[in-house]
Amino acid sequence: MSKVKTLEDLQKLIKDTQAIGTIEARWEAVAAVDPRLVQQLSHSNFESISEDRQVIASGTPASPGAASGLLCLSADTVLSVDEEGEQTILVCSETTPADEIGMRLAAGIVTARGGISSHAAVIARGWGIPAVVGVPSLQINEKSAFFGEVEIKEGEPISLDGATGQIIFGSNHVEDSEQIPEIEQLLEWADEIRGERIGVLANADTEEDLLAALAFGAEGVGLCRTEHMFLGEQLPLIQEFLNAQEDPPENVLQELELTQRSDFVKLFRAAGDLPVTVRLLDAPLHEFLGASASQEEHNPMLGTRGVRLALLRQDLYRMQARAISKAISDITKEGGKPNVSIMIPLVVDRKELEIIRGWIEDAITEIMKVDNFLETPRVGTMIETPRAALSASEIAKEADFFSFGTNDLTQMVFGFSRDDIEKEVMEQYLQMKVLEDNPFEVLDPGTIAPLIAAATRAARISRPGIEVGVCGEHGGEPSSISLLVEAGVDYVSCSPFRIPVARLSTAQALITQDQNK
Amino acid sequence: MSKVKTLEDLQKLIKDTQAIGTIEARWEAVAAVDPRLVQQLSHSNFESISEDRQVIASGTPASPGAASGLLCLSADTVLSVDEEGEQTILVCSETTPADEIGMRLAAGIVTARGGISSHAAVIARGWGIPAVVGVPSLQINEKSAFFGEVEIKEGEPISLDGATGQIIFGSNHVEDSEQIPEIEQLLEWADEIRGERIGVLANADTEEDLLAALAFGAEGVGLCRTEHMFLGEQLPLIQEFLNAQEDPPENVLQELELTQRSDFVKLFRAAGDLPVTVRLLDAPLHEFLGASASQEEHNPMLGTRGVRLALLRQDLYRMQARAISKAISDITKEGGKPNVSIMIPLVVDRKELEIIRGWIEDAITEIMKVDNFLETPRVGTMIETPRAALSASEIAKEADFFSFGTNDLTQMVFGFSRDDIEKEVMEQYLQMKVLEDNPFEVLDPGTIAPLIAAATRAARISRPGIEVGVCGEHGGEPSSISLLVEAGVDYVSCSPFRIPVARLSTAQALITQDQNK
Repeated sequence: MSKVKTLEDLQKLIKDTQAIGTIEARWEAVAAVDPRLVQQLSHSNFESISEDRQVIASGTPASPGAASGLLCLSADTVLSVDEEGEQTILVCSETTPADEIGMRLAAGIVTARGGISSHAAVIARGWGIPAVVGVPSLQINEKSAFFGEVEIKEGEPISLDGATGQIIFGSNHVEDSEQIPEIEQLLEWADEIRGERIGVLANADTEEDLLAALAFGAEGVGLCRTEHMFLGEQLPLIQEFLNAQEDPPENVLQELELTQRSDFVKLFRAAGDLPVTVRLLDAPLHEFLGASASQEEHNPMLGTRGVRLALLRQDLYRMQARAISKAISDITKEGGKPNVSIMIPLVVDRKELEIIRGWIEDAITEIMKVDNFLETPRVGTMIETPRAALSASEIAKEADFFSFGTNDLTQMVFGFSRDDIEKEVMEQYLQMKVLEDNPFEVLDPGTIAPLIAAATRAARISRPGIEVGVCGEHGGEPSSISLLVEAGVDYVSCSPFRIPVARLSTAQALITQDQNK
Repeated sequence: MSKVKTLEDLQKLIKDTQAIGTIEARWEAVAAVDPRLVQQLSHSNFESISEDRQVIASGTPASPGAASGLLCLSADTVLSVDEEGEQTILVCSETTPADEIGMRLAAGIVTARGGISSHAAVIARGWGIPAVVGVPSLQINEKSAFFGEVEIKEGEPISLDGATGQIIFGSNHVEDSEQIPEIEQLLEWADEIRGERIGVLANADTEEDLLAALAFGAEGVGLCRTEHMFLGEQLPLIQEFLNAQEDPPENVLQELELTQRSDFVKLFRAAGDLPVTVRLLDAPLHEFLGASASQEEHNPMLGTRGVRLALLRQDLYRMQARAISKAISDITKEGGKPNVSIMIPLVVDRKELEIIRGWIEDAITEIMKVDNFLETPRVGTMIETPRAALSASEIAKEADFFSFGTNDLTQMVFGFSRDDIEKEVMEQYLQMKVLEDNPFEVLDPGTIAPLIAAATRAARISRPGIEVGVCGEHGGEPSSISLLVEAGVDYVSCSPFRIPVARLSTAQALITQDQNK
């Protein structure tokens, strides 16, 4: 059966299905629609009249949608141009977490380096910002960007199409996407099929992200990253803490705790009684300290990250545990019912989890002495190292839940550094058909999917009822979702802008599963 | 039963066993000896009279044995001081492959950075050079090394004990190890038990390494790395090749092919009819190009290495295949019977192997047109990415043999970069008992050993009779050997200086296995 791929066909399908009015017809309708149509219709497109648009370069389409604005060569420039009320396009070599404050305000992002899983691409998709990355012809100097021979100065207009990877000369009118009633209807039917069988949650770091995600139909937060809470004004504090060899100044941690507590309060309040899973800090050292640090690492992706940094600098996670627990207490006092889980990144052994759980319990005990308005958070772990997946049975004994981090898992199972491999090797591998798909886009059916399925089985035998989710980029990709549903996960969590596709794809996967029974 | 741990007890044991004269007694004797005794007795020690030696610093003991010589702050200085007939100790921040020519001549090596699996440590163990790495108090300037407050100028004497990690002031008399007849006897009995059941091969890159390995009782070469063939005088050639975007100058490859062919001829001639497994080039790009290269990678360990580089720059492995095939032909014409295998590094999918095998067959066909003195080499693969281990059944269809690279496998399964993790994290993890042993020293019994066992089983079902070996550092470590024998491998391959321990440990593992049947 050929899939429904145009809005016109979708409109007809919805009308016919409503006319029949049976559950079976609705199931057939849900099964019939190509998820790419839903993806495409939830992002802005250039107005059709700009057919004479002048394409000046092409790169990797990294986050769909179209954007037009004034070219800014740094995140700082984005901040100042944005203050003047102008739309901005950030054009740079590549981005780092320090750029995130500016990136958030940009209408579009273009980078010379990096691939589909580079920092710029992941962040842009998360925030629904159109982006094109890895533009080979892009050269940047202090005042201009050169796309081949076309020079565009800082402050001049430029446009991009994140769905095709095109960079377009000058200013272009961008048509905003609008809610299409037939899509809304289709996704309601999909939710009806999904019922309680599998959850669709969002990766959302802030209150704003969460509100965007809820508008798209997310049922909670499967991954709240806390890295951004250490950036901006907080960056000098965490740098001071990390550079201090022993006994960091007490006020540094107190100040970090205060701002994190207030961020968590906002997020938990906005979430109501929906689940929110907070991941404790996981950033490679060099992202905070920069290349100047004496702690510079050869392979930071495999270095002092996540729980490893936490075991070296034990005040860090203790501080985050206090901030989260106090925020839970604050919301409870307001009469809220926060439903919070704490997640530990980069675990390789159950003992890491055991130690961190002890710290979290310490924080709770301390708070309970003065304040018994506290719903105890659950404590679980990312499963993102191959070792964690291979020892799922042991680790489950210490974990209230698992969340597979499929980006890192893919990285380590293949031995592929996303940033490096997508520059040249991936293209060659796809062209020579060594790999059928880029495993960072489509979950590897040969090894990663079976590994997740086996780890899920082992965990459930070891700890019946353990909740198992996925919070990598794959959680919003249709064919990956189909493999994850087959593996038996309880929920997928993805970028807010991928939620509609995830709602449809999970329902389709369940239909296929039921048919095969 | 407490193990025999002193030379005196060993001498008594051998004497008693000879008096009894039965096979059973010999088995019991082999089982009774602590492998550490054999390790200890095969390396040089400081003469006992230097009890007043002045220890000025300590680091990680990285390669056993004692050494004394004139301090050299670079590999180049080692070369010039060595020419004057003086013993040298190389003292530097850390080493890279470009230093290997100098390292080979040093009597000892000391580095400020790095752990037990750093470049300096691995190379030193491979060549049996005493080494101490990761000396925290070591500071180096242009003309001196400072161990805390003790300054030693370049050209002044210094000593080290690679078994304890001590750095010792001044010149000290070093007593060379000598062959101990009781050890020889014990190892002969161990070989008798081992028989044909499991092989003990050496990691040996050159004719000299091979001769050292044969003296220790190796039965061939399980891993001949070819990286050194691109260093020294050849370095500018490979740099020119890698920096050329298209069509590299023909003479560059011809020159590399000629020198490699002559290196292989020497190695194959020395090996006689013993097996020699040659691994095609596997070095991260930055090791050849240096940090200046535009191709600089964020995580080179997970970047453009091994077969990945080969698929981007296809002339490289074709050149190596021609050099190996022509060397086989040269030796065959001399009347030799070379027994050569070609091994592909960093494979993740059988298709990579399929493509490279095609190139090797092309090279052979071309040579056969003018010359039919050619024993066709076997073609196999390293299993060092988790994905290769997890898809062993598929990959075995294209591989004449497997060789597990346990260093990289450990690195990727744990998500541990050796160089980075061993600086701080490992010490903390061992101290907090998160891990019982450093998995780079002792094979992880929880995940790596079962993964090797499962991949071996899957490969043998898919391709009955496929040969399976191990060529990581673990192949010479007693408790790892016991796990590998249990996993059913056909051979272990380790540094020449670990061969005696491997001969004893494999025999002990077989005895235990038989007892448990």
